[in-house]
Amino acid sequence: MLAMKGGVGEKSYANNSTFQQKVISMAWPITKEAITQLYCSSYPTSLAIADLGCSSGPNTLILVSNLINQVEKIRHQLHKHPLEYQIFFNDLHTNDFNSLFKSLPSFHQNLETHIGNHDLGPCFFTGVPGSFYGRLFPRSSLHFVFSSYSIHWLSQVPDGLECNKGNIFASHRSPNQALEAYQKQHQKDFSTFLKCRAEELVVGGRMVLISTVRISDDRRMSKEVCYTWELLNLALNSMVAEGVIEEEKVNSFNLPVLTPSLSEVKGIVANEGSFSIDRYEVSKINWNAFDEPCTNIESNIVESSIVVNKECNYAKCMRSVVESLFVRHFGEDIIDELFDRYEQIMKDYMLK
Amino acid sequence: MLAMKGGVGEKSYANNSTFQQKVISMAWPITKEAITQLYCSSYPTSLAIADLGCSSGPNTLILVSNLINQVEKIRHQLHKHPLEYQIFFNDLHTNDFNSLFKSLPSFHQNLETHIGNHDLGPCFFTGVPGSFYGRLFPRSSLHFVFSSYSIHWLSQVPDGLECNKGNIFASHRSPNQALEAYQKQHQKDFSTFLKCRAEELVVGGRMVLISTVRISDDRRMSKEVCYTWELLNLALNSMVAEGVIEEEKVNSFNLPVLTPSLSEVKGIVANEGSFSIDRYEVSKINWNAFDEPCTNIESNIVESSIVVNKECNYAKCMRSVVESLFVRHFGEDIIDELFDRYEQIMKDYMLK
Repeated sequence: MLAMKGGVGEKSYANNSTFQQKVISMAWPITKEAITQLYCSSYPTSLAIADLGCSSGPNTLILVSNLINQVEKIRHQLHKHPLEYQIFFNDLHTNDFNSLFKSLPSFHQNLETHIGNHDLGPCFFTGVPGSFYGRLFPRSSLHFVFSSYSIHWLSQVPDGLECNKGNIFASHRSPNQALEAYQKQHQKDFSTFLKCRAEELVVGGRMVLISTVRISDDRRMSKEVCYTWELLNLALNSMVAEGVIEEEKVNSFNLPVLTPSLSEVKGIVANEGSFSIDRYEVSKINWNAFDEPCTNIESNIVESSIVVNKECNYAKCMRSVVESLFVRHFGEDIIDELFDRYEQIMKDYMLK
Repeated sequence: MLAMKGGVGEKSYANNSTFQQKVISMAWPITKEAITQLYCSSYPTSLAIADLGCSSGPNTLILVSNLINQVEKIRHQLHKHPLEYQIFFNDLHTNDFNSLFKSLPSFHQNLETHIGNHDLGPCFFTGVPGSFYGRLFPRSSLHFVFSSYSIHWLSQVPDGLECNKGNIFASHRSPNQALEAYQKQHQKDFSTFLKCRAEELVVGGRMVLISTVRISDDRRMSKEVCYTWELLNLALNSMVAEGVIEEEKVNSFNLPVLTPSLSEVKGIVANEGSFSIDRYEVSKINWNAFDEPCTNIESNIVESSIVVNKECNYAKCMRSVVESLFVRHFGEDIIDELFDRYEQIMKDYMLK
């Protein structure tokens, strides 16, 4: 069963952003419903939950905290026995698991304080390094999987993008051949993702996926969700126009990222065949989302004191997410200027 | 069932030492027997193996590699189907899991190359941060547990060591009261360790523990295994004598470490009652062990090119293990001098 939440808006993979908190809050009703139905379907004595693409930062633990609190709330209401929680944090091998692990003792202590030391069952926290476009867990070992703002990253830059000159992603200006290459890679990756999770989840297990989608099926209309990349592309192209970066360097660079349409997502789920979509919800996210600090719904355990400055913060978030990809291709030297230009272009855009 | 190997000799917790490789090689026959018996008792389709106190460094993966290779060798001989491996790496929250995780893709690739890409079942590697003096895994979730040179570390500095003036460990010069405080803490910790593991292991699961033990039950004879700490204590006391460190500072410092006697270990296992000792072996380790590079028995997968210089290397190993404990108590300033003196004392000692 797949409960999917697609948020139409700009993407932020950076974990310590107010934006990410907003997204988690928006997706909470659908996530809460899924975990509640899962728990109430069998009142299990142990619950294995996986966060795929967990990153590291204060937001990593918000959803886990909310999930445990929700189960504990129902368990209390129904006078059920405490259960064992096994929480798996997954991200690539290069993720900063050290920071995440160091934050776990105080997180666990806060959970115990909130729920009651003697009433909370054992919680086992583990880190699982690796790509979620492959198997990560033994067969039938998970009850609940969620992934927030990660599955729009592809497993690799698609082959056959030589034609995508001047564009660094599947832009509305990209030739058909490039858009098809991106779509083909996404189809392959998302199918593999579903196949792997189907093997790992127990029968009756549930999955909540939070990601960006396009409303329109017309790829040329994809501007609606791609301003983030579009403006970064603009910044890069302005540096080409001024001779700071070689044109060829930009022509040979493409980001491994795609925002599929809602019907594309539904089609892949149906074709792959392992999951049925239980519920989906599409929400528009306003640019102002970056401006307001977010209160953490239904949990006072993880608090965040991040207060952000609209466009500057977003440009910084984006930098933290994609910097390493740009450094690898363009080198260190152009990075500061690129993101300064990006910030300025974003400011101008927001004023409009 | 507890297969226990106690190596009488000096302790090195530092993972990237030739000494640690020697110890693993010496303990391999008993470990090989345990994993072979486990596999052949039921030919399981999945095998969950935990390394408790894994540290991070090239040696972390040697024993895991040997275990998988051994199971695969028997599986081939008996024409059994491939199985799923779940490998759990445990150490404290402050361990460098990032380095360990980054080394996993090439480790896995080497395993596949060695065993055969299409013949090796899925291997799932996970990191489990936390103290092994508490529950780390769900009930009955492990088949095989091993721990190499870690369980001589206590969960805390024992209470009641005010009398242990001038000594930084359970020395042959310590008053009875201090030795009893150390022994009491060890009894409590090792019993807790066994109790937790008994809950986590499946019925018929096996555990191999590699650690230091004293042959003699007379605690005053404990010099036999404590030269490491004794010489470090000497270095520290020489700095007190010269007024570099305040006497009171040394009086209030004690290491959370104990080398129990073999009969103490057997007694705790018997009293706790969850495990029976299947086999134990005591080996003397020569100081020269630090001098010779070690070839990795029964596996050509993990290779180490570490060539060490006898006493200097050992002093450096010790520094990498205990430095943080000393810095926390004595501050950064005295550390270089302390370990310079330690190295010199060790050189003089080795010449004798």
